[in-house]
Amino acid sequence: MNTDKAPTLDLNCDMGESFGQYVMGNDAGIMPYISSANIACGFHAGDPNIMAKTVKLALEHHVAVGAHPGLPDLQGFGRRNINISPEEAYTLTLYQIGALSAFVTAEGSQLHHVKPHGALYNMAARDPDLAKAIAEAVYQFNPELILYGLAGSCLISQAETIGLRTASEVFADRSYQSNGQLTPRDQTGAMLEDKQKSLEQIRDMVLHNQVTSLDGQIIAIQADTLCIHGDGPWALDFVRGCERFLQAQGITIQTIQAQ
Amino acid sequence: MNTDKAPTLDLNCDMGESFGQYVMGNDAGIMPYISSANIACGFHAGDPNIMAKTVKLALEHHVAVGAHPGLPDLQGFGRRNINISPEEAYTLTLYQIGALSAFVTAEGSQLHHVKPHGALYNMAARDPDLAKAIAEAVYQFNPELILYGLAGSCLISQAETIGLRTASEVFADRSYQSNGQLTPRDQTGAMLEDKQKSLEQIRDMVLHNQVTSLDGQIIAIQADTLCIHGDGPWALDFVRGCERFLQAQGITIQTIQAQ
Amino acid sequence: MNTDKAPTLDLNCDMGESFGQYVMGNDAGIMPYISSANIACGFHAGDPNIMAKTVKLALEHHVAVGAHPGLPDLQGFGRRNINISPEEAYTLTLYQIGALSAFVTAEGSQLHHVKPHGALYNMAARDPDLAKAIAEAVYQFNPELILYGLAGSCLISQAETIGLRTASEVFADRSYQSNGQLTPRDQTGAMLEDKQKSLEQIRDMVLHNQVTSLDGQIIAIQADTLCIHGDGPWALDFVRGCERFLQAQGITIQTIQAQ
Amino acid sequence: MNTDKAPTLDLNCDMGESFGQYVMGNDAGIMPYISSANIACGFHAGDPNIMAKTVKLALEHHVAVGAHPGLPDLQGFGRRNINISPEEAYTLTLYQIGALSAFVTAEGSQLHHVKPHGALYNMAARDPDLAKAIAEAVYQFNPELILYGLAGSCLISQAETIGLRTASEVFADRSYQSNGQLTPRDQTGAMLEDKQKSLEQIRDMVLHNQVTSLDGQIIAIQADTLCIHGDGPWALDFVRGCERFLQAQGITIQTIQAQ
Repeated sequence: MNTDKAPTLDLNCDMGESFGQYVMGNDAGIMPYISSANIACGFHAGDPNIMAKTVKLALEHHVAVGAHPGLPDLQGFGRRNINISPEEAYTLTLYQIGALSAFVTAEGSQLHHVKPHGALYNMAARDPDLAKAIAEAVYQFNPELILYGLAGSCLISQAETIGLRTASEVFADRSYQSNGQLTPRDQTGAMLEDKQKSLEQIRDMVLHNQVTSLDGQIIAIQADTLCIHGDGPWALDFVRGCERFLQAQGITIQTIQAQ
Repeated sequence: MNTDKAPTLDLNCDMGESFGQYVMGNDAGIMPYISSANIACGFHAGDPNIMAKTVKLALEHHVAVGAHPGLPDLQGFGRRNINISPEEAYTLTLYQIGALSAFVTAEGSQLHHVKPHGALYNMAARDPDLAKAIAEAVYQFNPELILYGLAGSCLISQAETIGLRTASEVFADRSYQSNGQLTPRDQTGAMLEDKQKSLEQIRDMVLHNQVTSLDGQIIAIQADTLCIHGDGPWALDFVRGCERFLQAQGITIQTIQAQ
Repeated sequence: MNTDKAPTLDLNCDMGESFGQYVMGNDAGIMPYISSANIACGFHAGDPNIMAKTVKLALEHHVAVGAHPGLPDLQGFGRRNINISPEEAYTLTLYQIGALSAFVTAEGSQLHHVKPHGALYNMAARDPDLAKAIAEAVYQFNPELILYGLAGSCLISQAETIGLRTASEVFADRSYQSNGQLTPRDQTGAMLEDKQKSLEQIRDMVLHNQVTSLDGQIIAIQADTLCIHGDGPWALDFVRGCERFLQAQGITIQTIQAQ
Repeated sequence: MNTDKAPTLDLNCDMGESFGQYVMGNDAGIMPYISSANIACGFHAGDPNIMAKTVKLALEHHVAVGAHPGLPDLQGFGRRNINISPEEAYTLTLYQIGALSAFVTAEGSQLHHVKPHGALYNMAARDPDLAKAIAEAVYQFNPELILYGLAGSCLISQAETIGLRTASEVFADRSYQSNGQLTPRDQTGAMLEDKQKSLEQIRDMVLHNQVTSLDGQIIAIQADTLCIHGDGPWALDFVRGCERFLQAQGITIQTIQAQ
């Protein structure tokens, strides 16, 4: 997605993950620093009231609004794999995109992208049938939407096959293996705990399209959008530091441009 | 909505009320006879798979597709009043319209109308604040949609106030009181059990804009759309008989025309 | 429930109101100061994992464990009235008591009491049919359980009619009307914001079975158990201050004794 | 479980799988013919009203009442694997056993057994950690309960390891492989469609503790309880035919006796 012009990076963050009286995340604090918001659609988090409020907040900050569909599992926060069929992946994605999009439409704006959540994101990164079904749901709703997926994953390739625009997502706090995949969380070295190394990893990915794997190899990677975590005590600190660092590197924070 | 031309009547029916493995209604049997389908949106009935299938079925039969939003109460089938605020009525209606609309969009067609379900319909018929909130949700999503509501109710008047098109719904199997309201179900004579009287009530409402109340008075009523019940052993018989009767009376079955 | 011996007061608090990844309240902080815990049962809050954990926490602190059944409305946190029938009140109460009780049994202990939550509590305080249905669910499960309800309410009287033991609940942060009812929250003076006045109200209720109404009258009231709020920044401060005050007044904090 | 006395067989059937207005199965028709009912507990099917009604029906027919806990997936009817932890399997099983047991207690009777449903049953048949967690939930609730599981499965062996009584379940309409496992449904010959062969398979399993595998080998199998399907047009015919056949073979239909 990067052009020959000044390098850019999209900062995306999962938003609207509260539910009823339950509060999660720090949406109001993080929103000013990001360029894309992935808003929960009521299956793994979020409810209609929260969605209305979060869409308004994003639009006030000129942040691109995306749907963040998940598995129907509020208790598990959409993080437990459920053995759904591709047809079910298609319908639950389409349902959630439509629901979220209605709030954007009602505010006179337009949906910008879709990023699957949690277990749905991970399952779609590996399973081409689920990936294709999700991509088709996005395409059938609006072929101009952008599908956010794990860089190098099956979700990105399936989406491109059917002609959908994609944004390859990378992580600043995770290490990569020499095969280009994220190091699984249960392995040593999976998490990058050194903030400076995280920032350097971002720089390498954005400016040079490469990342150094856990075992020291240089790996090619496409970095269109960086996942910012909105929860936890350090979230706000990190996103502020990230903004300063990107600015110093001459990298502009901006969302993926609609065609 | 009737013009000086040949009289017309819309026949609408609640559809897509199955859920998961649970089957309700006789959608495939009834669909050929109606002109408008109100499709459940997953809160009181329906799920994404059922919605996808039901939207396709309606479009195959050239039936106008409407969203049928309900209260979030699958166990109670949306028939138990829940004390929601107008803001909640707005957001849950908008959510469900968007979700259903996505399946229509994905099939290359357009949503035609919205009809609230069960307790939401009844609460909106009496409570102007809920009625206004629901009407605004419809309007903000798409001001060209038609809101179906109880003839003479607060939902119709609130919708018209904000400039939304409406369809006044009447019933063939219910008697009316002299104040123009339906006789409550727990009162004697509430249900019309004589099929011939039902058909005559339809004729009077469509051709003469009037109905004879339970105590014998002639009452003015607007009849744009007739509610067909899709469930029960006699549903199919009734809708077939109704079609023949309307034909004999020179009344054309057709949905409310979009402007 | 008070005897001629040293005056006692039960301090009860709603507990286990988290859900999945969502955290609510400060259970670990408050538990050491109370004598009875009302644990959410999965309908308005809580889930099986949270219930298991909260029951263990209560038992570790020798706090009496009660079931806290609510309406099936996680989004509304059980605070929105739902128009359920007495039969439904019976079955949903019985279901939740059984579910919570299983975790107590699995830890080798016994359920002590039942306190309805939110809208179910308020509806049962006014509607004798719902009150009776709830009381019967408790009685049929175990006639030795104690039903906690609003002092002077219909829930208390219906429970006593069928031979169930009760605990009359009073509030320290709410004012009372001269008819013995709580001042509705939307009226001026409903909330007692002066902590000292709150403590004096407790003292009068426990030692003298009376309370001064908002308009200055002395009203008789039965005070078996005091509702402690577990959420909010001042919750821990208040319960600590309350403990010291009760101690100074010679009032022992202890749960309602099983017969 | 068979003694030297007259041979016996338990006939169990999943019951109470309706939900709200949705009807499933033919509980009233099947109940007279079975000896054990596995009653859904509200997670994959059933609701508190249905549970109350189904427990009463079973007790009227002197049928042993069991809890039939499932995964929290009403849409998928508990048939889609969800990647839960053993701790979650423990808590969701305990919750559901408690809930169902409350309705039995309220009717003055006692819970007899527990049989996991659908995906939970299948996952527990293969995964020893899940199997152990489920068995422990049963044991902690009441060590005298009987756990029903697939004959020869991991659920049976884990339950026996912790000292729980078990009932090995066999099927009349499924073929077995030479390793003693059921032939997977997607393989040719998985379903026995010849009713006479089904009955002979039952006879061999009960009288001789053996079954002929799909490839013609004689396999040892423990047959304590036979799964009767309650749904479908032939369910009632089959259970009647089964009763006559067992009678002719001198096999008594009776539930697993409590010690």
